[in-house]
Amino acid sequence: MKYDKEINGLKNWIVAEEDFCQEYLGKFESIMYQGNGYLGIRACTEETYPGEVRNTFISGTYNKFHPSEVTELPNAADVIGIDIYINGKKMNLMEGNFKNYSRYLNLKNGELVRNFIWLGPSGEEVEFTFKRLVSLANYHLVAQEVLIKPLSKPVQLKLKSGINGQMTNSGVQHFFEGEKRLYDGKYLNFIQTTIESNIHFVINSTHSFFKNNEYYEPESIILMDRRKIFFEFNDKIEVGQELVLNKLSTFHTSRDKELEKLSLKEIILESLKELREESKKRYNQLLMESEEKWEKEVWSQGPIEILSTDGFDQLAIRFAQYHLRIMTPFHDNRMSVGAKGLSGEGYKGHVFWDTEIFILPYYIYTYPDKARLLLEYRYFTLDGARKKAKENGYEGAMYPWESAWKDDGEVTPVWGAADIVTGEATKIWSGFIEQHISADISYAIWQYYQITGDEDFLIKYGYEMLFEIAKFWASRVEWNEEKGRYEIKGVIGPDEYKEHVDNNAFTNYMAKFAISIAIDCYNSLREKVDQKVFDELNEKIKIDDWIEKWIDVQRKIYLPKPNENLVIPQDDTYLQKEVIDLTKYKNQQQVGSIFRDYNLAQVNQIQVTKQADVIILLYLLEHYFSKDVKKANWDYYEPKTLHDSSLSLSTHCIIANDLGEKELAYQLFKKAAQIDLGPNMKSSDHGIHAASIGGIWQCVVNGFGGVRIIDGKLRIQPSLPENWSKLKFVIYYQGDKLSIEITKDKVMIEKLTNRNREIEILNNQQFYLLKDKLVLKI
Amino acid sequence: MKYDKEINGLKNWIVAEEDFCQEYLGKFESIMYQGNGYLGIRACTEETYPGEVRNTFISGTYNKFHPSEVTELPNAADVIGIDIYINGKKMNLMEGNFKNYSRYLNLKNGELVRNFIWLGPSGEEVEFTFKRLVSLANYHLVAQEVLIKPLSKPVQLKLKSGINGQMTNSGVQHFFEGEKRLYDGKYLNFIQTTIESNIHFVINSTHSFFKNNEYYEPESIILMDRRKIFFEFNDKIEVGQELVLNKLSTFHTSRDKELEKLSLKEIILESLKELREESKKRYNQLLMESEEKWEKEVWSQGPIEILSTDGFDQLAIRFAQYHLRIMTPFHDNRMSVGAKGLSGEGYKGHVFWDTEIFILPYYIYTYPDKARLLLEYRYFTLDGARKKAKENGYEGAMYPWESAWKDDGEVTPVWGAADIVTGEATKIWSGFIEQHISADISYAIWQYYQITGDEDFLIKYGYEMLFEIAKFWASRVEWNEEKGRYEIKGVIGPDEYKEHVDNNAFTNYMAKFAISIAIDCYNSLREKVDQKVFDELNEKIKIDDWIEKWIDVQRKIYLPKPNENLVIPQDDTYLQKEVIDLTKYKNQQQVGSIFRDYNLAQVNQIQVTKQADVIILLYLLEHYFSKDVKKANWDYYEPKTLHDSSLSLSTHCIIANDLGEKELAYQLFKKAAQIDLGPNMKSSDHGIHAASIGGIWQCVVNGFGGVRIIDGKLRIQPSLPENWSKLKFVIYYQGDKLSIEITKDKVMIEKLTNRNREIEILNNQQFYLLKDKLVLKI
Repeated sequence: MKYDKEINGLKNWIVAEEDFCQEYLGKFESIMYQGNGYLGIRACTEETYPGEVRNTFISGTYNKFHPSEVTELPNAADVIGIDIYINGKKMNLMEGNFKNYSRYLNLKNGELVRNFIWLGPSGEEVEFTFKRLVSLANYHLVAQEVLIKPLSKPVQLKLKSGINGQMTNSGVQHFFEGEKRLYDGKYLNFIQTTIESNIHFVINSTHSFFKNNEYYEPESIILMDRRKIFFEFNDKIEVGQELVLNKLSTFHTSRDKELEKLSLKEIILESLKELREESKKRYNQLLMESEEKWEKEVWSQGPIEILSTDGFDQLAIRFAQYHLRIMTPFHDNRMSVGAKGLSGEGYKGHVFWDTEIFILPYYIYTYPDKARLLLEYRYFTLDGARKKAKENGYEGAMYPWESAWKDDGEVTPVWGAADIVTGEATKIWSGFIEQHISADISYAIWQYYQITGDEDFLIKYGYEMLFEIAKFWASRVEWNEEKGRYEIKGVIGPDEYKEHVDNNAFTNYMAKFAISIAIDCYNSLREKVDQKVFDELNEKIKIDDWIEKWIDVQRKIYLPKPNENLVIPQDDTYLQKEVIDLTKYKNQQQVGSIFRDYNLAQVNQIQVTKQADVIILLYLLEHYFSKDVKKANWDYYEPKTLHDSSLSLSTHCIIANDLGEKELAYQLFKKAAQIDLGPNMKSSDHGIHAASIGGIWQCVVNGFGGVRIIDGKLRIQPSLPENWSKLKFVIYYQGDKLSIEITKDKVMIEKLTNRNREIEILNNQQFYLLKDKLVLKI
Repeated sequence: MKYDKEINGLKNWIVAEEDFCQEYLGKFESIMYQGNGYLGIRACTEETYPGEVRNTFISGTYNKFHPSEVTELPNAADVIGIDIYINGKKMNLMEGNFKNYSRYLNLKNGELVRNFIWLGPSGEEVEFTFKRLVSLANYHLVAQEVLIKPLSKPVQLKLKSGINGQMTNSGVQHFFEGEKRLYDGKYLNFIQTTIESNIHFVINSTHSFFKNNEYYEPESIILMDRRKIFFEFNDKIEVGQELVLNKLSTFHTSRDKELEKLSLKEIILESLKELREESKKRYNQLLMESEEKWEKEVWSQGPIEILSTDGFDQLAIRFAQYHLRIMTPFHDNRMSVGAKGLSGEGYKGHVFWDTEIFILPYYIYTYPDKARLLLEYRYFTLDGARKKAKENGYEGAMYPWESAWKDDGEVTPVWGAADIVTGEATKIWSGFIEQHISADISYAIWQYYQITGDEDFLIKYGYEMLFEIAKFWASRVEWNEEKGRYEIKGVIGPDEYKEHVDNNAFTNYMAKFAISIAIDCYNSLREKVDQKVFDELNEKIKIDDWIEKWIDVQRKIYLPKPNENLVIPQDDTYLQKEVIDLTKYKNQQQVGSIFRDYNLAQVNQIQVTKQADVIILLYLLEHYFSKDVKKANWDYYEPKTLHDSSLSLSTHCIIANDLGEKELAYQLFKKAAQIDLGPNMKSSDHGIHAASIGGIWQCVVNGFGGVRIIDGKLRIQPSLPENWSKLKFVIYYQGDKLSIEITKDKVMIEKLTNRNREIEILNNQQFYLLKDKLVLKI
């Protein structure tokens, strides 16, 4: 891993690898993956290696292989792979026969470049350069450029390149094979259709060759194999010549919003037309077009500047912004972000609370119109949530722990890793009882509304979701007659190492929060907003029938209070469980190392926490808790938290910073950033950690930058790490764009939009008014 | 490739590879594959490489992935793969970091052995030996032994080994995942079930470790992944120590005859019981048990001795016998031999005429009781053949060109390779119109009966098939009023480069033969054999209604006669087609090279033949044709035959030998043997060539050995190649076992069985009587 590579004057924009190592393919395939929210392609090499995972995903195209398995994003046909033979020898790097190797991902324009000199068995020296992009200018387009230059002697070249539909998801084939065809002697066309959801994928590829910058056609033959269509090209290259191949490929599916109504035949024609158009351009022009979009959509709209003694910090936030962009399906509000983005098979492309709690804040503050689309996704799946509630004997909307397409409902797999004691697969309970997701969605809607003021969203989608979620919680709580309170029994909180617990603090507090919001909305909708909206909603989902119950539950729901040591019990029994020495399992490269010694039933009996649980409650509902309580719980829970989920470190970073533990907070930030960008070469094999990448941004803006919404008010109270001299970023607030520049001793807030209004800003428990510019001392 | 390796005094028994080459993995995976007719496992290495094809097949377990695709043998979970880490580095050989490499297959006992010294990056020298067998003593059992010996310094060893169900058939997943479990802390258990045919596969593995020959248990942990269950073992090995791993695995399916009636649970218990029993033995004992079976079942029953100046010839016939044994499912008459045996995905495990015409003769002459099982398979699929006839508007039994399970009917895929002119996939017509298969089966039944005299088979199965096939042909022929003859129009003959031809000579002659046999059987059954059998059959399939039609067709069917040059027209138009220079396409490493220049429609218009067509007719019905006619047709067709099918060379070898072209015949024998065993490193990638391997035996015994059935009589008229001084083999004839020893000047025939009867033997058109021993001059 190289973090300080400079390309064309770009510094802290480049993630680079300086040596080839076949054992760490997965790491780079994931962190250097490319995409645009529609399409995601792992950074596999053109040549193949054992252990590679060659994935191409298209957002939202879920398919279920068999009724006994859960739906997942299917791995589409591969267009990246190219077999290259030099004088009959298949080029690969495992034999160590290369020099001057480098590969890098340019975060600024999303281009992946690989360059090396290959040393052949007969003294051949051939320089290879591979360039690749997944276009942000045309979501359907993948462009590759391959440059081959013999340095020592002329070489006979053979290339096999085309479309390879033999790909699977770790052995699961989601497609049946459709037609494969060559059009106009030039355009390879391959159809594959998902076996259960019946989505057609239309994939095209075309090749153009240039020598000495002149277009030419080498000897070629079209070949087909099972689920494969490809060309074999044969050519001789002289020393001094450079062969340039431009391979352009397009992906379209019958699930695409704009193609939904077309027949397969029409989609094929449409896609071929598009490829014909695009293939009039050369690779560099396509790169330029995509680069412009990156600049316009991402970097100029949400620039973040970190002046640190360690350039890695600036790189880390750009890495986060790059990945946040490519993982998010902005083109279609029927989709949301998978826990691994589009970077790997991990979590099957399913959507978790990761989106609302860890990723959404970035969009709410930086691209509020995009944030709205992600929340609309939850409206799209509302009927599924209603169905899940009904199936479980509840009312309203019970959101699935893992979510996929509209009707899929709950898609959490039921069986997981081996139980080391019984030898059987462990049952995964999250899909049944990890219920806080429904409150998390209310929280996110409310956060979105508070920051954007988007009343239209509430009316069209938000109110209905908030009310349905409140109904769920009101039907979910159980009345404890003896104690005169409502309780929530038998759940899993964020800490998944504790199953079937009663009154998980996080769940109870968040459930109450969700109900409170619903009550507030009920009142304001009824009294202030719009009687018509209220009447329509009431007609549709009968909120009048629920308001009394909500108020009752809100008043009487049990919230675990800090004990005599100010510690909030994570649940009813946590504090009574055994305390063991966790040193062996903390700070392990390998997450879940405790399961090498204990099975889940045993871990359930120990005071050990997988990930921020009480701690994230202290963050999300921070104004509910005093600083003393925060400190006491930090001291109690941090040592017991293994951070065996990537959702944990960023929250701990923010809380540490809040508590004045600046050095520790900075370390935790680094660790969070290093989950993917760090030296652990195995942690990203199944894909990047989407929530953790959202967390990097949260550490920077919500943590060090101190930007929060407290009780509906914008608070800005920064506290930079020691070695940061400046942090500058923009946020949107209630329709205004603010630039925030933080240095050691002051924060300068500037309103970039020209609307004549003042914004209240909370700092050090005082309110200040921002008109055009505001400078606060730190 | 090394053909003269000697192991433990075994010469011409060893197929060896002396260097590792990742590009030629497929070759050795196929030709060194192991099996027992029930199970076939490609010779993949324990470590994985790009381009490897890791196949495990169980005979007869066909499954159809999707209605749009044809059924095939599914690739079961892999047990062979073991990831080996030495001091954290994953062992593989692509880096060229090894010495003293050798791998060999011992044909005598079916053991595969690999040995080398691996050179690690930190100066490690570690000797690895891998041994493996698929047991002939217990069809369900696979045993592996791995020996690891550090030579230079102690090493930290990590092994990941278990059962990997992520395997596919080139991307097609035929199974859904069932339970995976560890029993008794020791027995890995994995269930997979075919998605359409619903066959359960129960796979178990267990590991035992020995150090200094003492059993011990290294540190281990049980792990599961998607469709995977495996152990991770960790251990340190000192210099001077040798770690020995014995991994035993079993495969059982719910299609197994003896398990068919059991529940899945019962099969699991049964299979675990079996593995527990087997795992009491060490690898060497299991090898001994299997070796004994090889000796008893194969080598002592059907020994063939070739004294040649080139030891390759002896090796080649043993190679053939080895492969014939492992490809043939003797355990179950509901199955037959796939065109690639159990060695690869090629032809999807389907059964062609290859079995009856190229493989069956070996069994009829050498293991007649086994031959019967293969013919019973055709009885098992008779209903499917009746269905196919009906669907096509014919009567009787129209056998599928490609055959799989009972009800599957025709399973030839409909789409093939790319048409280089239109860019579309080429339609495969064989399943529709390559109809000679039905006559080939009659031919095989009759050959079996003539050689064995097995009346019981005819009564139980044979007559019914013969009559049903005759019905088909009688309904298939078309009356040509003008010419006053029956014709067969619109077929494909053995030469698949000619589609939709009329009156293919091979097809017409063979159809007439099939009808003639049926008439003979009708008469003899009615007059001589058993009235009850006749009545029952007549009741069941109404043969009385057909006899007149058969006689009419037999009399009036058009048989293309030799023309003025004595050339038999391959079909009505072949001789009028264009003649081109075929030099470029003959003797190419790559079969089908003509399709690089012409598409199939164009090839149809050229006098070019894919494989023996008229020539094989001259062989199968040799007494119909004079020597002059044979010579004329040889001279005409041989130069036009590209041998683009592996079914071609052995027939040409035999005919060349018949025509006295001894040197050419020997060359053709070598070429036929080299299809798999030769230097073409790519020809066997998709599996061995079962028919060609049967052809090797035919060249030796029917060709050089001169053993044939002519009009129901045993003819023995040898003609050895120049550099063979002796050929000795045994055959069965009418229940007697004969030893035949051929030298330059005489043939000595000895009756090994002690039945008091004389056998008529035809030689040089004279009959001799064999009582105990007979010596004929050559």
